[in-house]
Amino acid sequence: MRQFIIFGHETPADPSFSLDDLAGGAGRLDVLCRCVNSAVFLSHGMREDTKIQLVLSDTYRVEFDGKQLQYLHPDERTIASRIKNALENADMAIGHQPAEPSPGVKLYRMDTRSTVEAVAEQSAVIQLHESGTPITDVDMPQSSAFVLSDHQRFTTEEQEVLDEVVEKKISVGPKAIHANHAITVVHNYLDTERYRQYE
Amino acid sequence: MRQFIIFGHETPADPSFSLDDLAGGAGRLDVLCRCVNSAVFLSHGMREDTKIQLVLSDTYRVEFDGKQLQYLHPDERTIASRIKNALENADMAIGHQPAEPSPGVKLYRMDTRSTVEAVAEQSAVIQLHESGTPITDVDMPQSSAFVLSDHQRFTTEEQEVLDEVVEKKISVGPKAIHANHAITVVHNYLDTERYRQYE
Repeated sequence: MRQFIIFGHETPADPSFSLDDLAGGAGRLDVLCRCVNSAVFLSHGMREDTKIQLVLSDTYRVEFDGKQLQYLHPDERTIASRIKNALENADMAIGHQPAEPSPGVKLYRMDTRSTVEAVAEQSAVIQLHESGTPITDVDMPQSSAFVLSDHQRFTTEEQEVLDEVVEKKISVGPKAIHANHAITVVHNYLDTERYRQYE
Repeated sequence: MRQFIIFGHETPADPSFSLDDLAGGAGRLDVLCRCVNSAVFLSHGMREDTKIQLVLSDTYRVEFDGKQLQYLHPDERTIASRIKNALENADMAIGHQPAEPSPGVKLYRMDTRSTVEAVAEQSAVIQLHESGTPITDVDMPQSSAFVLSDHQRFTTEEQEVLDEVVEKKISVGPKAIHANHAITVVHNYLDTERYRQYE
Protein backbone atom coordinates (compact mmCIF):
# COMPACT_ATOMS: atom_id res chain seq x y z
CA MET A 1 0.00 0.00 0.00
CA ARG A 2 1.25 3.41 -1.01
CA GLN A 3 -0.19 6.43 0.71
CA PHE A 4 0.07 10.15 0.29
CA ILE A 5 -0.93 12.78 2.81
CA ILE A 6 -1.29 16.38 1.75
CA PHE A 7 -1.95 19.35 3.99
CA GLY A 8 -4.37 21.93 2.60
CA HIS A 9 -3.80 25.16 4.47
CA GLU A 10 -6.56 27.38 3.17
CA THR A 11 -8.95 24.72 1.91
CA PRO A 12 -12.60 24.89 2.91
CA ALA A 13 -13.94 23.04 5.93
CA ASP A 14 -17.52 23.50 4.73
CA PRO A 15 -19.16 22.76 1.37
CA SER A 16 -20.21 26.30 0.47
CA PHE A 17 -17.39 26.87 -2.01
CA SER A 18 -17.99 27.24 -5.75
CA LEU A 19 -16.76 24.63 -8.21
CA ASP A 20 -16.14 27.54 -10.59
CA ASP A 21 -13.52 29.11 -8.33
CA LEU A 22 -11.33 26.27 -7.01
CA ALA A 23 -8.10 28.25 -7.34
CA GLY A 24 -9.57 31.32 -5.66
CA GLY A 25 -12.46 31.26 -3.23
CA ALA A 26 -11.98 27.54 -2.51
CA GLY A 27 -8.54 28.15 -0.99
CA ARG A 28 -6.50 26.46 -3.69
CA LEU A 29 -8.52 23.26 -3.54
CA ASP A 30 -7.33 22.84 -7.15
CA VAL A 31 -3.91 21.86 -5.78
CA LEU A 32 -5.40 19.03 -3.74
CA CYS A 33 -7.56 17.88 -6.64
CA ARG A 34 -4.50 17.55 -8.83
CA CYS A 35 -2.83 15.56 -6.05
CA VAL A 36 -5.76 13.13 -6.05
CA ASN A 37 -5.41 12.87 -9.83
CA SER A 38 -1.71 12.04 -9.57
CA ALA A 39 -2.20 9.62 -6.70
CA VAL A 40 -4.95 7.31 -7.91
CA PHE A 41 -5.20 7.44 -11.71
CA LEU A 42 -3.57 5.16 -14.24
CA SER A 43 -4.21 5.50 -17.95
CA HIS A 44 -6.98 2.92 -18.02
CA GLY A 45 -7.93 2.35 -14.43
CA MET A 46 -7.08 3.21 -10.86
CA ARG A 47 -4.09 2.52 -8.68
CA GLU A 48 -5.72 -0.03 -6.44
CA ASP A 49 -2.74 -0.08 -4.07
CA THR A 50 -2.89 3.65 -3.33
CA LYS A 51 -4.74 5.94 -0.93
CA ILE A 52 -4.44 9.67 -0.54
CA GLN A 53 -5.38 11.61 2.60
CA LEU A 54 -6.34 15.27 2.25
CA VAL A 55 -6.12 17.27 5.46
CA LEU A 56 -8.50 20.19 5.10
CA SER A 57 -7.51 23.18 7.22
CA ASP A 58 -6.53 21.06 10.25
CA THR A 59 -10.19 20.01 10.62
CA TYR A 60 -11.11 17.10 8.35
CA ARG A 61 -9.33 14.17 6.76
CA VAL A 62 -10.77 13.16 3.39
CA GLU A 63 -9.50 9.84 2.04
CA PHE A 64 -9.60 8.71 -1.61
CA ASP A 65 -8.98 4.96 -1.93
CA GLY A 66 -7.92 3.81 -5.39
CA LYS A 67 -9.28 0.36 -4.76
CA GLN A 68 -12.81 1.48 -3.95
CA LEU A 69 -13.35 4.55 -6.10
CA GLN A 70 -16.01 4.32 -8.78
CA TYR A 71 -16.96 6.56 -11.68
CA LEU A 72 -14.39 9.17 -10.69
CA HIS A 73 -13.18 11.31 -13.57
CA PRO A 74 -9.67 12.76 -13.36
CA ASP A 75 -10.54 16.44 -13.87
CA GLU A 76 -10.27 18.95 -11.03
CA ARG A 77 -13.95 19.86 -11.07
CA THR A 78 -15.15 16.28 -10.69
CA ILE A 79 -12.70 15.56 -7.88
CA ALA A 80 -13.64 18.80 -6.14
CA SER A 81 -17.31 17.85 -6.35
CA ARG A 82 -16.52 14.65 -4.44
CA ILE A 83 -14.80 16.69 -1.73
CA LYS A 84 -17.75 19.06 -1.62
CA ASN A 85 -20.08 16.10 -1.32
CA ALA A 86 -17.98 14.70 1.53
CA LEU A 87 -18.18 18.00 3.39
CA GLU A 88 -21.96 18.08 2.86
CA ASN A 89 -22.06 14.77 4.72
CA ALA A 90 -19.70 15.77 7.53
CA ASP A 91 -22.49 15.36 10.08
CA MET A 92 -22.32 11.62 9.42
CA ALA A 93 -18.74 11.48 10.74
CA ILE A 94 -19.01 10.85 14.46
CA GLY A 95 -16.04 10.11 16.67
CA HIS A 96 -13.76 7.68 14.88
CA GLN A 97 -16.50 6.72 12.41
CA PRO A 98 -16.10 8.34 9.02
CA ALA A 99 -18.76 9.52 6.66
CA GLU A 100 -18.60 7.61 3.37
CA PRO A 101 -20.75 9.60 0.99
CA SER A 102 -19.53 7.83 -2.16
CA PRO A 103 -17.55 4.62 -2.79
CA GLY A 104 -13.90 5.07 -1.94
CA VAL A 105 -14.31 8.51 -0.38
CA LYS A 106 -14.32 8.83 3.40
CA LEU A 107 -14.41 11.91 5.57
CA TYR A 108 -13.05 11.70 9.10
CA ARG A 109 -13.36 14.31 11.78
CA MET A 110 -9.60 14.37 12.28
CA ASP A 111 -7.01 17.13 12.40
CA THR A 112 -3.41 17.14 11.17
CA ARG A 113 -1.95 15.41 14.22
CA SER A 114 -4.49 12.61 14.43
CA THR A 115 -4.30 11.97 10.68
CA VAL A 116 -0.52 11.71 10.71
CA GLU A 117 -0.52 9.52 13.80
CA ALA A 118 -3.14 7.18 12.34
CA VAL A 119 -1.17 6.71 9.14
CA ALA A 120 2.11 6.31 11.03
CA GLU A 121 0.64 3.33 12.87
CA GLN A 122 0.32 1.53 9.55
CA SER A 123 3.46 2.41 7.60
CA ALA A 124 6.72 4.28 7.43
CA VAL A 125 6.24 8.01 6.98
CA ILE A 126 8.44 9.86 4.52
CA GLN A 127 8.32 13.62 4.16
CA LEU A 128 8.78 15.03 0.68
CA HIS A 129 10.75 18.21 0.99
CA GLU A 130 13.03 20.31 -1.20
CA SER A 131 15.85 19.98 1.33
CA GLY A 132 15.57 16.21 1.75
CA THR A 133 17.97 13.49 0.65
CA PRO A 134 17.84 12.99 -3.14
CA ILE A 135 15.41 10.23 -4.03
CA THR A 136 18.16 8.60 -6.11
CA ASP A 137 20.18 8.01 -2.96
CA VAL A 138 17.61 6.28 -0.75
CA ASP A 139 15.88 2.97 -0.53
CA MET A 140 12.12 3.37 -0.26
CA PRO A 141 9.84 0.59 0.91
CA GLN A 142 6.83 0.13 -1.38
CA SER A 143 4.50 0.56 1.57
CA SER A 144 5.51 4.06 2.63
CA ALA A 145 3.26 7.04 3.33
CA PHE A 146 4.54 10.24 1.73
CA VAL A 147 3.66 13.59 3.28
CA LEU A 148 3.47 16.76 1.22
CA SER A 149 2.35 20.33 1.65
CA ASP A 150 0.19 22.27 -0.79
CA HIS A 151 1.33 25.58 -2.28
CA GLN A 152 2.38 26.77 1.18
CA ARG A 153 5.28 25.56 3.28
CA PHE A 154 4.81 23.19 6.20
CA THR A 155 3.96 25.24 9.29
CA THR A 156 6.02 25.02 12.48
CA GLU A 157 3.20 23.10 14.15
CA GLU A 158 2.98 20.61 11.29
CA GLN A 159 6.73 20.10 11.29
CA GLU A 160 6.64 19.36 15.00
CA VAL A 161 4.03 16.65 14.45
CA LEU A 162 5.99 15.22 11.54
CA ASP A 163 9.31 15.25 13.40
CA GLU A 164 7.82 12.70 15.81
CA VAL A 165 7.12 10.11 13.12
CA VAL A 166 9.03 10.90 9.93
CA GLU A 167 11.72 8.36 9.08
CA LYS A 168 13.23 10.17 6.13
CA LYS A 169 13.02 13.46 4.30
CA ILE A 170 13.33 12.99 0.57
CA SER A 171 13.72 15.41 -2.31
CA VAL A 172 12.44 14.21 -5.68
CA GLY A 173 14.77 16.40 -7.73
CA PRO A 174 16.92 19.52 -7.80
CA LYS A 175 14.02 21.79 -8.75
CA ALA A 176 11.12 22.64 -6.44
CA ILE A 177 8.02 21.25 -8.12
CA HIS A 178 4.30 21.20 -7.40
CA ALA A 179 2.95 18.63 -4.95
CA ASN A 180 1.05 16.71 -7.63
CA HIS A 181 4.17 16.46 -9.76
CA ALA A 182 6.10 15.09 -6.77
CA ILE A 183 3.45 12.38 -6.31
CA THR A 184 3.83 11.38 -9.96
CA VAL A 185 7.61 11.14 -9.60
CA VAL A 186 7.34 9.00 -6.46
CA HIS A 187 4.92 6.64 -8.21
CA ASN A 188 7.27 6.36 -11.16
CA TYR A 189 10.20 5.56 -8.89
CA LEU A 190 8.31 2.83 -7.15
CA ASP A 191 6.77 1.54 -10.40
CA THR A 192 10.11 1.15 -12.09
CA GLU A 193 12.02 0.32 -8.93
CA ARG A 194 14.77 2.36 -10.43
CA TYR A 195 15.98 3.34 -7.00
CA ARG A 196 17.17 -0.21 -6.44
CA GLN A 197 19.66 0.20 -9.19
CA TYR A 198 21.51 2.66 -7.02
CA GLU A 199 22.10 0.24 -4.22
CA MET B 1 14.82 23.81 -25.05
CA ARG B 2 12.43 21.03 -24.09
CA GLN B 3 9.24 20.69 -26.02
CA PHE B 4 6.12 18.61 -25.72
CA ILE B 5 3.52 18.06 -28.42
CA ILE B 6 0.16 16.61 -27.50
CA PHE B 7 -2.58 15.60 -29.89
CA GLY B 8 -6.12 16.44 -28.77
CA HIS B 9 -8.48 14.26 -30.73
CA GLU B 10 -11.87 15.59 -29.70
CA THR B 11 -10.86 19.02 -28.51
CA PRO B 12 -12.75 22.03 -29.77
CA ALA B 13 -11.62 24.02 -32.79
CA ASP B 14 -13.88 26.91 -31.87
CA PRO B 15 -14.30 28.83 -28.60
CA SER B 16 -17.94 28.00 -27.92
CA PHE B 17 -17.20 25.36 -25.25
CA SER B 18 -18.07 25.84 -21.58
CA LEU B 19 -15.36 26.18 -18.95
CA ASP B 20 -17.73 24.27 -16.64
CA ASP B 21 -17.62 21.13 -18.79
CA LEU B 22 -14.01 20.63 -19.85
CA ALA B 23 -14.12 16.85 -19.38
CA GLY B 24 -17.38 16.50 -21.29
CA GLY B 25 -18.62 18.95 -23.88
CA ALA B 26 -15.12 20.37 -24.42
CA GLY B 27 -13.83 17.04 -25.74
CA ARG B 28 -11.51 16.25 -22.85
CA LEU B 29 -9.77 19.58 -22.99
CA ASP B 30 -9.04 18.91 -19.30
CA VAL B 31 -6.39 16.40 -20.40
CA LEU B 32 -4.56 19.02 -22.43
CA CYS B 33 -4.84 21.58 -19.63
CA ARG B 34 -3.15 19.19 -17.22
CA CYS B 35 -0.43 18.65 -19.79
CA VAL B 36 0.20 22.40 -19.90
CA ASN B 37 0.36 22.38 -16.11
CA SER B 38 2.93 19.57 -16.08
CA ALA B 39 4.97 21.10 -18.89
CA VAL B 40 5.51 24.70 -17.77
CA PHE B 41 5.02 25.00 -14.01
CA LEU B 42 7.62 24.85 -11.27
CA SER B 43 6.75 25.36 -7.63
CA HIS B 44 7.59 29.05 -7.66
CA GLY B 45 7.85 30.01 -11.27
CA MET B 46 7.79 28.72 -14.79
CA ARG B 47 10.01 26.39 -16.75
CA GLU B 48 11.57 29.00 -19.00
CA ASP B 49 13.26 26.37 -21.16
CA THR B 50 10.00 24.59 -22.06
CA LYS B 51 7.28 24.96 -24.66
CA ILE B 52 4.24 22.78 -25.18
CA GLN B 53 2.30 22.51 -28.43
CA LEU B 54 -1.36 21.50 -28.30
CA VAL B 55 -2.76 20.18 -31.57
CA LEU B 56 -6.50 20.78 -31.49
CA SER B 57 -8.44 18.35 -33.65
CA ASP B 58 -5.91 18.45 -36.51
CA THR B 59 -6.81 22.11 -37.09
CA TYR B 60 -4.92 24.46 -34.79
CA ARG B 61 -1.61 24.46 -32.95
CA VAL B 62 -1.68 26.34 -29.64
CA GLU B 63 1.72 26.97 -28.09
CA PHE B 64 2.39 27.77 -24.42
CA ASP B 65 5.92 29.12 -23.92
CA GLY B 66 7.20 28.92 -20.33
CA LYS B 67 9.55 31.82 -20.92
CA GLN B 68 6.87 34.27 -22.02
CA LEU B 69 3.79 33.27 -20.03
CA GLN B 70 2.49 35.78 -17.52
CA TYR B 71 -0.13 35.58 -14.79
CA LEU B 72 -1.02 32.02 -15.71
CA HIS B 73 -2.46 30.00 -12.83
CA PRO B 74 -1.94 26.23 -12.86
CA ASP B 75 -5.57 25.16 -12.58
CA GLU B 76 -7.42 23.55 -15.48
CA ARG B 77 -10.05 26.27 -15.73
CA THR B 78 -7.52 29.10 -16.06
CA ILE B 79 -5.48 27.23 -18.65
CA ALA B 80 -8.65 26.35 -20.57
CA SER B 81 -9.68 30.00 -20.57
CA ARG B 82 -6.38 30.87 -22.29
CA ILE B 83 -7.09 28.25 -24.95
CA LYS B 84 -10.62 29.60 -25.36
CA ASN B 85 -9.20 33.08 -25.70
CA ALA B 86 -6.73 31.87 -28.33
CA LEU B 87 -9.58 30.31 -30.34
CA GLU B 88 -11.55 33.54 -30.06
CA ASN B 89 -8.63 35.23 -31.80
CA ALA B 90 -8.12 32.59 -34.47
CA ASP B 91 -8.97 35.10 -37.20
CA MET B 92 -5.70 36.87 -36.38
CA ALA B 93 -3.71 33.79 -37.43
CA ILE B 94 -3.05 34.20 -41.15
CA GLY B 95 -0.79 31.92 -43.15
CA HIS B 96 2.33 31.26 -41.10
CA GLN B 97 1.64 34.19 -38.78
CA PRO B 98 0.20 33.14 -35.42
CA ALA B 99 -2.31 34.94 -33.30
CA GLU B 100 -0.81 35.91 -29.94
CA PRO B 101 -3.77 36.85 -27.78
CA SER B 102 -1.84 36.81 -24.49
CA PRO B 103 1.88 36.73 -23.63
CA GLY B 104 3.38 33.31 -24.22
CA VAL B 105 0.29 31.89 -25.94
CA LYS B 106 0.28 31.59 -29.72
CA LEU B 107 -2.28 30.03 -32.01
CA TYR B 108 -1.17 28.84 -35.44
CA ARG B 109 -3.41 27.69 -38.26
CA MET B 110 -1.54 24.39 -38.48
CA ASP B 111 -2.60 20.76 -38.55
CA THR B 112 -0.91 17.70 -37.07
CA ARG B 113 1.52 17.19 -39.94
CA SER B 114 2.68 20.78 -40.22
CA THR B 115 3.07 21.09 -36.44
CA VAL B 116 5.19 17.95 -36.20
CA GLU B 117 7.31 18.94 -39.20
CA ALA B 118 7.89 22.44 -37.84
CA VAL B 119 9.06 21.09 -34.49
CA ALA B 120 11.18 18.38 -36.13
CA GLU B 121 13.15 21.07 -37.95
CA GLN B 122 14.33 22.38 -34.59
CA SER B 123 15.00 19.32 -32.48
CA ALA B 124 15.02 15.55 -32.15
CA VAL B 125 11.51 14.12 -31.89
CA ILE B 126 10.83 11.38 -29.36
CA GLN B 127 7.51 9.60 -29.16
CA LEU B 128 6.29 8.63 -25.71
CA HIS B 129 4.54 5.31 -26.03
CA GLU B 130 3.73 2.37 -23.78
CA SER B 131 5.58 0.00 -26.09
CA GLY B 132 8.74 2.12 -26.39
CA THR B 133 12.21 1.47 -25.01
CA PRO B 134 12.33 1.97 -21.22
CA ILE B 135 13.45 5.50 -20.39
CA THR B 136 16.08 4.05 -18.09
CA ASP B 137 17.82 2.46 -21.07
CA VAL B 138 18.16 5.45 -23.39
CA ASP B 139 20.16 8.62 -23.61
CA MET B 140 17.95 11.65 -24.12
CA PRO B 141 19.29 14.98 -25.32
CA GLN B 142 18.04 17.89 -23.23
CA SER B 143 16.69 19.58 -26.35
CA SER B 144 14.27 16.88 -27.45
CA ALA B 145 10.62 17.30 -28.39
CA PHE B 146 8.38 14.66 -26.86
CA VAL B 147 5.14 13.67 -28.59
CA LEU B 148 2.16 12.33 -26.67
CA SER B 149 -1.44 11.47 -27.31
CA ASP B 150 -4.35 12.48 -25.10
CA HIS B 151 -6.73 9.86 -23.65
CA GLN B 152 -7.00 8.23 -27.10
CA ARG B 153 -4.35 6.26 -28.95
CA PHE B 154 -2.36 7.74 -31.80
CA THR B 155 -4.34 7.34 -35.02
CA THR B 156 -2.92 5.54 -38.05
CA GLU B 157 -2.56 8.88 -39.84
CA GLU B 158 -0.71 10.44 -36.90
CA GLN B 159 1.62 7.47 -36.64
CA GLU B 160 2.45 7.76 -40.33
CA VAL B 161 3.45 11.39 -39.82
CA LEU B 162 5.47 10.52 -36.75
CA ASP B 163 7.24 7.59 -38.37
CA GLU B 164 8.85 10.05 -40.78
CA VAL B 165 10.55 12.05 -38.04
CA VAL B 166 10.61 10.14 -34.75
CA GLU B 167 14.09 9.14 -33.64
CA LYS B 168 13.08 7.02 -30.67
CA LYS B 169 10.02 5.62 -28.99
CA ILE B 170 10.31 5.73 -25.22
CA SER B 171 8.23 4.29 -22.41
CA VAL B 172 8.39 6.12 -19.10
CA GLY B 173 7.55 3.09 -16.99
CA PRO B 174 5.92 -0.32 -16.89
CA LYS B 175 2.43 1.09 -16.22
CA ALA B 176 0.39 3.05 -18.75
CA ILE B 177 -0.06 6.51 -17.23
CA HIS B 178 -1.83 9.72 -18.18
CA ALA B 179 -0.12 12.07 -20.63
CA ASN B 180 0.41 14.78 -18.01
CA HIS B 181 2.04 12.30 -15.67
CA ALA B 182 4.39 11.21 -18.46
CA ILE B 183 5.43 14.83 -19.00
CA THR B 184 6.25 15.16 -15.30
CA VAL B 185 8.36 12.00 -15.39
CA VAL B 186 10.30 13.18 -18.45
CA HIS B 187 11.00 16.53 -16.79
CA ASN B 188 12.21 14.74 -13.67
CA TYR B 189 14.51 12.53 -15.69
CA LEU B 190 16.04 15.48 -17.46
CA ASP B 191 16.17 17.60 -14.28
CA THR B 192 18.09 15.01 -12.36
CA GLU B 193 20.00 13.69 -15.36
CA ARG B 194 19.58 10.33 -13.81
CA TYR B 195 19.57 8.72 -17.19
CA ARG B 196 23.28 9.50 -17.55
CA GLN B 197 23.99 7.15 -14.72
CA TYR B 198 22.91 4.28 -16.89
CA GLU B 199 25.46 4.94 -19.59
